[in-house]
This record gives sequence, structure tokens and C-alpha cells, in this order.
Amino acid sequence: MLLAALALGTVVPATAGETRIPEAAIETAAGLRDRALAENPGYAIIEELTTVIGPRMPGTEADARAVEWAKQKFEALGFDRVTTVPVTFDVWLRGEERAEILGTVPQPLKITALGGSVATPAEGIEAEVVEFPNLQALADAPDGSLEGKIAYISNRMQRFRDGRGYGPAVAARSTGAVEAARKGAIGLLIRSISTAEHRFPHTGQMRYEDGVARIPAAALANPDADQLSRLIALGEPVSVRLMLETMTPGEYTSHNVIGDLIGREAPEEMVVIGAHLDSWDLGTGALDDGAGIGITFAAGHLIGQLPERPRRTVRVIAFAAEEIGLLGARAYAQHEATRVREHVIAAESDFGAGRIYALRSNAKDEAWGAIEQIGDVLRPLGIETERGVGGPGPDIIPLATRGVTWAQLAQDGTLYFDYHHTADDTLDKIDAGDIDQQVAAYAVFAWLAAEAEGDFGSAPPGSD
Amino acid sequence: MLLAALALGTVVPATAGETRIPEAAIETAAGLRDRALAENPGYAIIEELTTVIGPRMPGTEADARAVEWAKQKFEALGFDRVTTVPVTFDVWLRGEERAEILGTVPQPLKITALGGSVATPAEGIEAEVVEFPNLQALADAPDGSLEGKIAYISNRMQRFRDGRGYGPAVAARSTGAVEAARKGAIGLLIRSISTAEHRFPHTGQMRYEDGVARIPAAALANPDADQLSRLIALGEPVSVRLMLETMTPGEYTSHNVIGDLIGREAPEEMVVIGAHLDSWDLGTGALDDGAGIGITFAAGHLIGQLPERPRRTVRVIAFAAEEIGLLGARAYAQHEATRVREHVIAAESDFGAGRIYALRSNAKDEAWGAIEQIGDVLRPLGIETERGVGGPGPDIIPLATRGVTWAQLAQDGTLYFDYHHTADDTLDKIDAGDIDQQVAAYAVFAWLAAEAEGDFGSAPPGSD
Repeated sequence: MLLAALALGTVVPATAGETRIPEAAIETAAGLRDRALAENPGYAIIEELTTVIGPRMPGTEADARAVEWAKQKFEALGFDRVTTVPVTFDVWLRGEERAEILGTVPQPLKITALGGSVATPAEGIEAEVVEFPNLQALADAPDGSLEGKIAYISNRMQRFRDGRGYGPAVAARSTGAVEAARKGAIGLLIRSISTAEHRFPHTGQMRYEDGVARIPAAALANPDADQLSRLIALGEPVSVRLMLETMTPGEYTSHNVIGDLIGREAPEEMVVIGAHLDSWDLGTGALDDGAGIGITFAAGHLIGQLPERPRRTVRVIAFAAEEIGLLGARAYAQHEATRVREHVIAAESDFGAGRIYALRSNAKDEAWGAIEQIGDVLRPLGIETERGVGGPGPDIIPLATRGVTWAQLAQDGTLYFDYHHTADDTLDKIDAGDIDQQVAAYAVFAWLAAEAEGDFGSAPPGSD
Repeated sequence: MLLAALALGTVVPATAGETRIPEAAIETAAGLRDRALAENPGYAIIEELTTVIGPRMPGTEADARAVEWAKQKFEALGFDRVTTVPVTFDVWLRGEERAEILGTVPQPLKITALGGSVATPAEGIEAEVVEFPNLQALADAPDGSLEGKIAYISNRMQRFRDGRGYGPAVAARSTGAVEAARKGAIGLLIRSISTAEHRFPHTGQMRYEDGVARIPAAALANPDADQLSRLIALGEPVSVRLMLETMTPGEYTSHNVIGDLIGREAPEEMVVIGAHLDSWDLGTGALDDGAGIGITFAAGHLIGQLPERPRRTVRVIAFAAEEIGLLGARAYAQHEATRVREHVIAAESDFGAGRIYALRSNAKDEAWGAIEQIGDVLRPLGIETERGVGGPGPDIIPLATRGVTWAQLAQDGTLYFDYHHTADDTLDKIDAGDIDQQVAAYAVFAWLAAEAEGDFGSAPPGSD
């Protein structure tokens, strides 16, 4: 488009005027909201996914079953078009794993391999453990000072409603093995990136770096990290045996599954909501991210039951392989590279099952009035509109970096990191009423964004 | 004694008058109480036991380490005499264990063998699961109706402050395998006897019966029981593979460890407080029963620091092998068979780490005034005196059945069965302030019972 061509790389309004949502659409949205609360369509979807599929690790037979389930579920929920986008990746699988303290105080430790970790030899590795209070302290250790040792990073994640304790803590998981190997360590243990005081070690993706030895890496449950730190504090050397079996059976192709409610006036323009279909292997992925699947599928279903389709297409995406690096989201953004501009706004539900407390967006100034119109319908749900804060859900990042406007329906994450990426991420952690609130919010958001006259400022660099 | 000989088998007062506690002893007790709250002597003992010994399964090397630890700890805490009583039993040990749902909805289940269970064949057993809502429904099933099947008892334990949900639920664990085998089942699964909504299966002792096939028996974590019940409710047959490795390496002799503060006037008369030193293997036995060890050892220590010894002996017993059938307590009662009458009153701390809310006893009428005197000193700790309710701690039962008067310092067990007998029974579940309150209560109780002039009514049948 001409205006965009005149201002490459900046946010450009699609029109000179304000983006507005017609009053009739607002009234319909209030009805959607109330139907979500009355009809409870989300929880049953989460229950079915987590029960009949269970854990959905990328590249497993459960991944394939989940993709089939999602296709059938979109059909059953009345979506107009169901498509898939292939996502190809190298599979990593967990096998047996165990650790124990050796010496005069022998006892087992609850650990789990970090995603992507190499295996140990079958008999495991045995070495003295050297504790560091955080990743930086490990990075500051002299080169070679950990020769033959196991590095142990013991910093504890802090609990906040918005989950902001995760970012600072998670670097130990992501890059700890690289830092440890640089110092000569033969293995890495970290305190779980988790707020739980339960013996569930927390997995999650880690990285290696070319040119640095690849050492096995595992997380200790919080009580086990406490125990290891207490023993080390007694002053005698503490040795651990760590055995991790991990497998890399080769390449696999999974699929993003997409359900569309085709827009009545501007079918090529899309409002995207979504969640990720995969989960870690340890739990059944109820909070991460069965909840998001249930919420967004149900929201689309409610919109699809209205007498007419929304003005724009409402697209619900079940992303593949989020946990191992946003691979489905990257594949989607690549697949849609020539249609990025048609994604007018995008939001993902991927922060557990806690209630939504804020609507946020990076919408352009001319569209902020429309965001506030959406916020007005959300307010009875306990949701405030907040400007200048927040960010996109993980699977929206590849679109957002291409210029797509994001929205965030920010959830209360106070308890999320008690369960996230652990065996304890199961259906019983979900309150059905909290799901209803979120289905209502996503239905309102998607419907109103699709009804808006004018855009939200999506402007990919170089878009035409 | 003459009076007892005149009325065999009934509760006989030692004197015709009331049992009373001298005022000076009451004053000292108030000081003990306040010192317990100020000096916090209990928590560090629990921390040390659960950290340097860890899990203390009867018959393991950790059992032996724990016995040595207890002897040294009594010495270090200033007890006058440390003795042991041997306890011999057949060892049962847990090995590998796993279960998974088969068929079209394959997924792993979190299970653990019940204590005493036989192993499965190395490859496990595979069979259809038949659900029963409770043990009675299983007992009511027709003979032979479970040929080749796995019986699954799904009743859920209810949560109460006094833990009264445990008794009705635990029968499924104790005798479920016998009932299931009578109907032809080849294995038993039960929902954990636990109030936790976490994926920690709950172990605990089970029994076989002569003449009935011994089938493997395991407990499912509550979320896994939910999952299995949901799948069964879908109406298709659900099959499970169950693999349990269990070992019975032979006989072992552990020891009750006894610390005495020898009475200044009536050293042969004893007030007993205690706890059990062993634990299940899954956790570190912090609540069950590291807490009781810390509380009673610390209470004895505080009494031992007074300027003079109590009038009677205060005996602190660390019982062996409680978890596998009160074996240490039975051995103790047998060992003391000729001195049962000298145990004037006995109380055990074995209900987790929650605060004490009531003092109870079956003391004779003539001693109830003395119980109320003790209660008066406990009241500032939030403890009420209650009559006609309660019962002895598990390890006191063998003494109580021989006529020894019991006292109960009843704890708040609201959260106890979230952790009891699971891997999650670890130190982080304990609040140090709650321990202080209990140390204070046990110190007050033991000191005042030892100072009482007159007895509490202990009268074993046939005692002389």
C-alpha cells in the first residue's frame, strides 16, 4: 500500500482517521461475553485434550494424535476452514534419569533433564558439586576451575503475579551448560526455574554453543536443591552421581493446525488468537498450554455460533513445537511471509489458567480508542486496559517481529510457575470458572478486533 | 502393689486422693514453655536428621545411620542414659516401579508400590482395569468376576483437621489386595490415601492373608487416579501395564533408641514421650516423623537443662520400624513387660508438624485435675484441654493396650495428608514456629507429669 511504502519500518496508520468499532458489534460482544460465562465451553476441551491425548511432546505419537484431535475439534466446533502448516524439527526425547548424593550421606535426588541435554554415559557421571549462587557467579569463575566437577546454580525464582521472576532465573537453564563447560565442568545441575515447594523438577529448553563442550544438564526440584545446598553448607565435599538417558531419533514433521471463521467482508484480513498444542512430556500440559487451546478454541466456537461471521476472518492457531523453540510459530510466520500485513492483530493464551486482569497492546495511537472500546466490554470481567506495558505471547513473537500488532490478555501467573514444565501440570490445577472468564475475554477481543473499522497498525517492514 | 492387686484389670488410683502437681513445678513449667519459644531447639534437630540421614527406611543403611545419630544426639543433648532395644524384622525394599495406560490413549501414570507388595514379573503385568468406588464395592463383586483383571479402588480420602478421613480410606490400602485376589484379580491399584492434588503417589503398609493369592499392589497419585477414572468413564476398556520391583533381602535388626533423664525421687517411674525414627523411603520423613523426633528430643533437652531432674524419669523414645507395623513399639512393650506399671503416662508426636490444639488423655478421674493443671500451662500456646475424646499415638498403642495411661497432644492435621508417605515429605513443609509451639507443649507436659504427686491410672491387667 502507498502509505506504508512511504514510511518503511515505521508504524503507519491505514487511514488518516481513527480506528473505531461500530456500536452494534459492541452489543454483540457483550452477549458473547455473557454466553461464555453461561455455557462454559472451554473446560471440556481442555479436559478432553489432556485426558485422551495426555502429554504431547513434539515428535511423539502423542504429537500426531494431538494434531488429528485439533483438526477434528475445529471441525466439530463449526470452524469454516481447517488447514495445517508443516513444522519440521529434530526430535529430542527423555529416557531414564536419576541422581543421588554419594559418600557418607547417600540419598536420592529428584531431577529431570533439561530439554535438549545430551545423555550421560549409561553408568552416569560422578563428580563433586560446586555451588554458584547464580549464573553470573559461574561465569565469573576462573577458566578451568571446574575441571571434572559438576557445576550447580542454586538461585531461586521469585513469585510475582506477572511472572517476571522467570526471565532473570531462566538464563541459568538456557545457557548454564555453556558457561559451566567453559570452566571445565562435566555436568550442570540447576535449581528448578519454579516457585513450587514440591519435589517436581522443572524441565525446559536449554542451548549449547558451537565450539563449547556439550555437557549433560538437569534441574533439581526445589526441595532437593535446598537439600543439596544444606549439605554443601556443612563444609565437606559433596559428590553426586547423575544419570541422564536422552534420545535424538531424528527429524519429524508436525503441524500447526489452523481453524478459520472466514470474514464476511474482508476475509483476507485476520485477527489471530491461539495457543500451543504441544507440551512437555512430564505432565499432561493442562496449564501449558491445554488451557490456551481450550480458551481460544472455545472463543472461536462462540463467535462461530453468531448469526453472521465477523467482518474479518478470525483465525485460531494451535501452534506446534512451542516448547522446543517456538518452532511452529516460526514456521507459521515464514509460511505467511507474503501475508503478514493481513494479520491485523494477534494474541496468544500461553500463561496457564489464571484469570485475565489486563488488556494490553502495542496498537498505534489511532487505534487506541478501539482498544479502549474492547476494554470497556472486558471491564465487567475484572479486566483493566493498560497502555505502554506487556508484550506478545511467545508464539506471536515471530509475527510481532515482522511488524504485526500484538495484544496481550494478561493472566494472573501467581501460581503458574508452581506447575509449569513439571509432572504436576495436570487438569486438577484448573478452575473451570477461571477458564470461562478467559473464553469470554478472548471471544470479545477477537470479535471486536475483527469488527473494527480501521486497522491496529500492523506494518511489516517492506510490506506492500 | 496392694491396691492394684485388689482390683485386677480395672483402673485403680495409686492413692485414695487426687493426683496433684505442686505449684513450684507449675512455675517451672511456664519457664520451660517460654524458653522453648525463645530458644527454638527443635527445628535444627529435624533439619539435621532429614539432611544428613535423609530417608530412613527400616532395614537400610540409613536406618543404621539414624540409630547411631539418635544415640549421639541424646548424648549431645545432655540425657543421663542412652539405651537401645533391638527390633528384628523382615526387610522389604522398593525397586523400580512404573505404570502406563495402554491402547489408543497411551500415557504414563505416577504410581508407587504399597509397602509389603510382591513384585510383578520383570516385564510387568498387563490387564484391563475394573474400577470400584470403594473397598466394599470390591468385596461385593462376584467371585471370579475379576479373573485376569486389575482391580482399581478409587475412593478419595476426605480432609479434616483431626485426620479422621484417613481411617475409612486406608482400608483399601491395607486389605484391598486380599479382596481383589479373592475375586481373581492379578493386581491392585488404589487411589492414594492422600488429600494432595499433586502427582505424588502415597505408599504405606498393606497386608496379605494366608490362603489368598499375593498380588502386586500400588497406589496412583490423585491426579493420575482422576485421569484413569476419566478414561474409564469414556466407556471403552482401559488397560494398564504395571511393573513393580520389590525386594525382601531377609532379616534385619534395628533398634529403638532411648534417652532418659533419670528421676530424682522415683527413677523407676517413667513419663514417656517419643516419636519414630524410621520413615518411608520416598521422602526424607520430615513430617513423618522427623518432626516428632525433633519435638520430643528438644523437649527432653530443655527439661535436662533445668537445675534439677524431674521427680520421675522422663524417657524419650525414638521408635524403630513404625511404618511397617509398629514393630519398634511392640518390641519395646515386650521388652518392658515386667515394668509396664512404671510407665505412668505416655504420649507420642507422630502427626506431622502442625500446631497442637488440644491436650487429651484417658487419665483416671482422680488425675483429671492434674491434667487440667497441665492444660492451664498449655493454654497460652493455643491448646485446650479436652476430655473423653482422642487416643494414643501409634507407637503408644502397645503400651496402652497393656494398660498404660496415654496422653495426646493433638495436632492440626489439615495439611498432613498432603505430604504423608510421599516423596514430598521434606523439610520445607515445616514451619519452625509451629515446632517451637510443640516443643514447648511436650516439655511442659513431660515435666509436669513427672512432677505430679500421684499417678494417672496406669494399671496393666495382672500388674502387681
